[in-house]
Amino acid sequence: MKKHEHFMQQALKAAHQAARLGEVPVGAVLVLDDRVFVAHNAPISSHDASAHAEIRAIRSACQAIGNYRLPGSTLYVTLEPCCMCAGAIVHARIDHVVYGAEDPKTGAVHSLYALLSDPRLNHRPKLTRGILTEPCAEVLRNFFRQRRKRP
Amino acid sequence: MKKHEHFMQQALKAAHQAARLGEVPVGAVLVLDDRVFVAHNAPISSHDASAHAEIRAIRSACQAIGNYRLPGSTLYVTLEPCCMCAGAIVHARIDHVVYGAEDPKTGAVHSLYALLSDPRLNHRPKLTRGILTEPCAEVLRNFFRQRRKRP
Repeated sequence: MKKHEHFMQQALKAAHQAARLGEVPVGAVLVLDDRVFVAHNAPISSHDASAHAEIRAIRSACQAIGNYRLPGSTLYVTLEPCCMCAGAIVHARIDHVVYGAEDPKTGAVHSLYALLSDPRLNHRPKLTRGILTEPCAEVLRNFFRQRRKRP
Repeated sequence: MKKHEHFMQQALKAAHQAARLGEVPVGAVLVLDDRVFVAHNAPISSHDASAHAEIRAIRSACQAIGNYRLPGSTLYVTLEPCCMCAGAIVHARIDHVVYGAEDPKTGAVHSLYALLSDPRLNHRPKLTRGILTEPCAEVLRNFFRQRRKRP
């Protein structure tokens, strides 16, 4: 459990970094053997609709190891993945997905859909939720509260 | 209708290009005003689990116009989009999605899921299917038939 909290803490730091850049604060950490790939949500600044934290971490890891699949990897993410990211997790054959806060609006792991538990898709990662849920949710709440305050 | 067939023909050419590179032959064309972005499926050669034709076309268009959203655009794709690509289509706010062949195994527009018609998600593009269905399906059938023949 301590390992999960350690990596989620790193993902949370990345989420705070996203907030400073004006991006919705979500962070992800992909761990593969002794390599760690950290990314934050960045669609606006990178001009890329697909640049969620999870996709960016997956892409970095794929590039680094020269493979489009990442068996044996664990993905930590501060927010429940959306449909796009859940789909990418299946394509990348990620072993284990660990997330912090639930996303009742667009979450596709337990909330709106259960894409990562669908026996019709050809990969089902292990799932762990509830790691540092409160700080992962808080960074998002604070971000949107600040944004609503703007004139 | 002729316009749809014209752009689907271009997507089909991209699918054939993918097959020549050993990638599953799917092609996409994103049309935004008078600009046309063509891409083929390329996860293996680009070492990127997310490099489906649709995502690559969306990314190219986003980069070119300097925006993470593509309102007013139409995406043509030879195969029914998967969960990942359907999610990206929602994020990119694509107006209209036109596809050729159905994908009963992983299609997320009509087959396994109807993600692009879900009123809980914050964008629902117009959908058109059945454009050049047979040649779009055939390039895939031929590819897998050839692959099974290999020793």
